[in-house]
Amino acid sequence: MGDLGRRARAAARLIALAPATKRDAALVAMAAALCANAAEILAANALDIADAKANGQNAAFIDRLLLDQARLDGVAEAVASVAALPDPVGRVLASWTQPNGLRFERVATPLGVIAVIFESRPNVTADAGALCLKSGNAAILRAGSDSFRTSSAIAAALRQGLEAAGLPADAIQLVPTRDRAAVGEILKGLDGHVDVVVPRGGKSLVARVQSDARVPVFAHLDGNCHVYVHASADLAMAREITLNAKLRRTGVCGAAETLLVDEACAATHLAPLVTALLDAGCAVRGDAATQELDARVTPATEQDWATEFLDRIIAVKLVAGLDAAIDHIERYGSHHTEAIVADDAAAARRFLAEVDSAIVLHNASTQFADGGEFGFGAEIGIATGRMHARGPVGVEQLCSFKYRVHGDGQIRS
Amino acid sequence: MGDLGRRARAAARLIALAPATKRDAALVAMAAALCANAAEILAANALDIADAKANGQNAAFIDRLLLDQARLDGVAEAVASVAALPDPVGRVLASWTQPNGLRFERVATPLGVIAVIFESRPNVTADAGALCLKSGNAAILRAGSDSFRTSSAIAAALRQGLEAAGLPADAIQLVPTRDRAAVGEILKGLDGHVDVVVPRGGKSLVARVQSDARVPVFAHLDGNCHVYVHASADLAMAREITLNAKLRRTGVCGAAETLLVDEACAATHLAPLVTALLDAGCAVRGDAATQELDARVTPATEQDWATEFLDRIIAVKLVAGLDAAIDHIERYGSHHTEAIVADDAAAARRFLAEVDSAIVLHNASTQFADGGEFGFGAEIGIATGRMHARGPVGVEQLCSFKYRVHGDGQIRS
Repeated sequence: MGDLGRRARAAARLIALAPATKRDAALVAMAAALCANAAEILAANALDIADAKANGQNAAFIDRLLLDQARLDGVAEAVASVAALPDPVGRVLASWTQPNGLRFERVATPLGVIAVIFESRPNVTADAGALCLKSGNAAILRAGSDSFRTSSAIAAALRQGLEAAGLPADAIQLVPTRDRAAVGEILKGLDGHVDVVVPRGGKSLVARVQSDARVPVFAHLDGNCHVYVHASADLAMAREITLNAKLRRTGVCGAAETLLVDEACAATHLAPLVTALLDAGCAVRGDAATQELDARVTPATEQDWATEFLDRIIAVKLVAGLDAAIDHIERYGSHHTEAIVADDAAAARRFLAEVDSAIVLHNASTQFADGGEFGFGAEIGIATGRMHARGPVGVEQLCSFKYRVHGDGQIRS
Repeated sequence: MGDLGRRARAAARLIALAPATKRDAALVAMAAALCANAAEILAANALDIADAKANGQNAAFIDRLLLDQARLDGVAEAVASVAALPDPVGRVLASWTQPNGLRFERVATPLGVIAVIFESRPNVTADAGALCLKSGNAAILRAGSDSFRTSSAIAAALRQGLEAAGLPADAIQLVPTRDRAAVGEILKGLDGHVDVVVPRGGKSLVARVQSDARVPVFAHLDGNCHVYVHASADLAMAREITLNAKLRRTGVCGAAETLLVDEACAATHLAPLVTALLDAGCAVRGDAATQELDARVTPATEQDWATEFLDRIIAVKLVAGLDAAIDHIERYGSHHTEAIVADDAAAARRFLAEVDSAIVLHNASTQFADGGEFGFGAEIGIATGRMHARGPVGVEQLCSFKYRVHGDGQIRS
């Protein structure tokens, strides 16, 4: 690891004080360098792909790892698009004046050094580097060993872009080794030179980071999201939202995993919802009432209520009203994203108030759990902690703040 | 410890959903119970005081521990005054509508369970309990063993107040043992039932908590605060601010510990500032230039620049301009509170932008580093972390947030 942390800290100070125009110019130059270095990047990727195949990785893994010209163009475009976001640094978040004339401002500042630990998707190198730079932070990127050559080639292009704009290349550093011990060192904070760790990858990676990190972590472990169909729900809306929440993309953290249907509308709503799911090719694991509806429904186990399937599988349960729905979510949920479908405004208000999740929706799909859909631009992930970043983590959430106080000689009595 | 954590979590959910009127009624009832239980509380305190004296504690320690009727009245008044603060829970921190019609709100929510670990001042029991309740959180309070009986009597009164208002007594729990192992259990998070730890006490307590806690900590280790007198500073203002920043109270974290004087105004400003400090009874540890001024100045060591004296001692140094001042603060400071005295607006702007501290002031005393002076009402402490709470931690900073999303059937394409 050498002096990676110390170099990141030194670069962070320069990046934090660089004007937005310079950071944006660097993002544009980084995008251009990704295009200019396409041959090197694709050649590195071909070597990573050959190794992955030789190691017997499956098709889904290979697909996540693969870059071609079109995908690389997309990566470059994503970096350039970050330049177009509003500058999150220096925003005055609040300001007020005290009776003694002191004027207070709460102002957004960069966090400092952000370490991003990811697995096989090489585009994360560019996305994470761009978001950290936009928010005035230095980035330490740890690529999965399978994408190491691709990520190294991408990081080299990003560093060219930084230098072309007159910013220190060390604002984006890729950990220069596949050695697994490096992750442990990062999680310990590199002697105080890492301010936050962002894991990007599967549950085992996130679990390890959450368990071992001695610095703050922006992440979620599970996205066990719920759709609750209240007695007052419009059936057509409930069907559309349920199908979309479960099936639009099953591998995203905002995908619904459990459908709760209120007993009070079971007679009218349960069968159409379950049939629609089954007909759309979704496996249904149901409670007793649900099993009676259709021979294709299999029994739900206790474990199913707590499972993030990330697949075409959903657990379905009848609940005895709003309180029972909230209790179920409280017991089995992961505080990520939950939706209520209801015409009854009071029921919706209670659900949004009482469900303790980062994102709660009324009459909308859980798949809106995404920084882009929130209007944040790109996101580095979704967090379910209660501190600092919660929900989608975009460039604003990659900032801290300070208080600026303006006086004209005030002393304290 | 038993099931302290589980009971706190259960109470936290009820407190979080209780309306502000009920939480405020409880605060008023808590204040009344403190007055009604005065005899028991003062009797308990007398026993703690007798033990402390028998153990040979010094006068300053005894004074921190001592309660009398007037001090207890003050404690009760402080609790009642928290009721009068605006409700921090449910504040809409931001709201916006996306082109698809989804309406987003970012809303303040309680953090959950807050553990406060403190030493001998028994009033912290009441202050911390009140601030946690106001912000909708459950509190686990760990008193120093010297104030255990006093804190137990105060906690009993607070719990009476909660019950009188129809809220669960377990929203405020005092750890019912002097056993030191309890602190270790709290720092590990009581099986996920502690969301944040707030240490209130000396440096060794804060250091232990920061080193051992596996949950977020709101604290500062050092308050090594600086006053920088720029070449453009008005001498009279510089003198007033320096004396106030150092000497108004020397034991608070916002007290100045180092005075940096710009070489460009040394001829006019250094001697008057140093003489004023010395004449006011402050020991001055100076660099070579400062030592030449007055025989009372002793040489500053390298260690002095990094020391939080918390006493009538100040380190004084000449610096070669704004950049040198910022570099000195960056090297030796603790990212707490720093002030510049300057008439030059551009210099002040740069100082406020480039000094990486929670609080930066222009032409005002560092002793304004206080939640009350910020207008936050009471504070539970001052934090120097970069996450979540930074600067004074009042009831707003004891909150997290969630996103409420209002739709009319939106699904994601």
